[in-house]
Amino acid sequence: MFDILSGLRIVEAASFIAAPSCALHAAQLGAEVIRIDQIGGGPDFKRWPLSRSGDSFYWEGLNKGKKSIAVDLSSAEGRELAAALITAPGEDAGLFVTNFPATGFLSHDRLAERRPDLITARIMGWADGQTALDYTVNAAVGFPLMTGPSALGDEPVNHVLPAWDIAAGLYAAFALVAAERKRLKTGQGGEIRVPLADVAMAFAGHLGMIGEVTESGTDRPRHGNDLFGSWGRNFATGDGKQIMLVAITRPQWADLIKTLGVEQEIAALETSLGLSLAKDDGLRFKHRDAINAIVAPAVAHRSLAEWRQVFDGTRVCWSPYLKVSEAMTEKGMFGDSPLFSSVAHQSGYTYPTPGAAVDFVDSIRQSPVRAPRLGENTEEVLADLLGLPTQEIAKLHDQGVVAGDSGND
Amino acid sequence: MFDILSGLRIVEAASFIAAPSCALHAAQLGAEVIRIDQIGGGPDFKRWPLSRSGDSFYWEGLNKGKKSIAVDLSSAEGRELAAALITAPGEDAGLFVTNFPATGFLSHDRLAERRPDLITARIMGWADGQTALDYTVNAAVGFPLMTGPSALGDEPVNHVLPAWDIAAGLYAAFALVAAERKRLKTGQGGEIRVPLADVAMAFAGHLGMIGEVTESGTDRPRHGNDLFGSWGRNFATGDGKQIMLVAITRPQWADLIKTLGVEQEIAALETSLGLSLAKDDGLRFKHRDAINAIVAPAVAHRSLAEWRQVFDGTRVCWSPYLKVSEAMTEKGMFGDSPLFSSVAHQSGYTYPTPGAAVDFVDSIRQSPVRAPRLGENTEEVLADLLGLPTQEIAKLHDQGVVAGDSGND
Repeated sequence: MFDILSGLRIVEAASFIAAPSCALHAAQLGAEVIRIDQIGGGPDFKRWPLSRSGDSFYWEGLNKGKKSIAVDLSSAEGRELAAALITAPGEDAGLFVTNFPATGFLSHDRLAERRPDLITARIMGWADGQTALDYTVNAAVGFPLMTGPSALGDEPVNHVLPAWDIAAGLYAAFALVAAERKRLKTGQGGEIRVPLADVAMAFAGHLGMIGEVTESGTDRPRHGNDLFGSWGRNFATGDGKQIMLVAITRPQWADLIKTLGVEQEIAALETSLGLSLAKDDGLRFKHRDAINAIVAPAVAHRSLAEWRQVFDGTRVCWSPYLKVSEAMTEKGMFGDSPLFSSVAHQSGYTYPTPGAAVDFVDSIRQSPVRAPRLGENTEEVLADLLGLPTQEIAKLHDQGVVAGDSGND
Repeated sequence: MFDILSGLRIVEAASFIAAPSCALHAAQLGAEVIRIDQIGGGPDFKRWPLSRSGDSFYWEGLNKGKKSIAVDLSSAEGRELAAALITAPGEDAGLFVTNFPATGFLSHDRLAERRPDLITARIMGWADGQTALDYTVNAAVGFPLMTGPSALGDEPVNHVLPAWDIAAGLYAAFALVAAERKRLKTGQGGEIRVPLADVAMAFAGHLGMIGEVTESGTDRPRHGNDLFGSWGRNFATGDGKQIMLVAITRPQWADLIKTLGVEQEIAALETSLGLSLAKDDGLRFKHRDAINAIVAPAVAHRSLAEWRQVFDGTRVCWSPYLKVSEAMTEKGMFGDSPLFSSVAHQSGYTYPTPGAAVDFVDSIRQSPVRAPRLGENTEEVLADLLGLPTQEIAKLHDQGVVAGDSGND
């Protein structure tokens, strides 16, 4: 948590990863985020991984530091309340993050009738409104057919990391703050749409893949674990551990061959090829088989613990392959980084919990705050944003239009 | 291109993906971005994929819409020029994006002596300054050991998509605009550090993976192409094409089993199991083998072309697995989306080129602009930002401190 965006108020009505993470990033930079959920929880409230008692580690990870209000969004009264909260007054308010359908009861145009300077950031699947998820857009842009061992042939390899959800959430956060900057100058709000498919397609272009296919007319084949166009791969250490080694820059390459003790073999290879592998990382890719035949036995010569010592303080770019359980105790990682604080969560577990993945060097990093219980802030939010008196809130409660903490059960 | 950030001026001295993409996103939202490069190009100037004539499709993808100035950054005069450009006056200027070392000649503290309200967004490897790249941080946070077929055992599967570079670039763009918002209110700048490793570690936490391991003490095994905790996998069509099918939400599941024509089989499965697969997507994960045994023969019953027709207009969440070359002509994709414009690039090729992956619905989307030639804007930038007269620029040229277009050769 930092105070960079303090004062800003965002209302979120969303589920899964992209839109909730957009608001999470804002919350971790100090914005007030109020998340509206269906009473009993939205479609992501019980998303795996779950604790034994049925709490979602995923939900409590993506909703840290937010306030929660539980509303019956299937009722006219509940929808009216949601619209009132989203468009509640305040110079630094009127910011809405959602993945609800563009044409439904939370359409921007309908909401903007109540607050014309509203800014809506809407995560979508395809730009035309068609449903899509991280896994389907990834299939559409070609990565699963480039990932994994070439022995797999035409069998795709899905990513486990929801990279497009992550990118779309961050892109939405960026666009939201950019739009709010414009509103500060012009008074104008508007709707921002961030389709997952557009994010995936744009990066395929930004990374040169469309140019590449335009020229060659053919698709990049699988290269297994080798880095495309430069040098890097996994290697086994003497004690059977796997490490990733990369050398993109000259210092990385120089320190690598020096620490591995293969300078002479590489020099002999360069002589036989009549070229310099240090000057051009593309040549290291072209001749990777010959390089790897030198590097592999060298890496196998020492244990992981020994390589840690040898690589320490050098510019060798490397990492052991760690399981999450191993990263828990790794130096500089989950349990040993200022990025993480030990936080007690609703699941009943206390574990290293990340704050903002940026460091504002001149600002104080505060510990991240656990996710709310569902409906934990219902009364407070209705009183603060809408000025509802206690009796009226009680009435909404009795009518089943809103729910407090009991919404968890 | 949109005009959301027009007026803002960012100076970039960076290479590879994360930092250049940060400034790219700002440029595509209308900011003026001036990229400073070493004369002859930085370490990413010839990054693969390359055209046959040696131009980098990657470089021309990541530097669209920027201005280029080529400077000899190894000389004192060149370093002085770079510092002067970064700290040049202007209310909406004084924004610097870089991946240069935190303690070097482009350290924030040194630059802030010239312009105290400077905002520096610095992409790093590890937070302590140790070198890292996308592939090494991905190895450290566990994904390569969860990706791919379980038959691979302990063999990691590297991602081809540089997801952490992409996320770090977007995170930096978000943090930069957030910091500039704070500067508008308080006058204070500062340094923002975005370590790749922190971004990767933070998302491992946000996605619930640390909570999961804290409770279980064991690591999530590989699940091949199956979606963890919900239902989805690749299936082969009758004509041997692969499609990705996912059903996370109830409407997606309902439309899936209806369009596949497997409602009766699924109902029989639910009866035999004594549970509802529609209500809880976690149960669909638990019983995925039984479900997949029903879905696979149903999908094999029709060709891809037939499934397109059947799925059209429904809420089935699906996509064919496409190669990049196939996505070139797919409906709604590279060649057929308002996200893309046909742009002539420096490589000599004209191809579909993405603009901003967000749509500001009330603003006009302008065509993306090609990347500059290296040094294309050297004279213009020196004259505009530093007010240097023509003779002085010519002198810098003659001394080899700056270079114009010829820097490409």
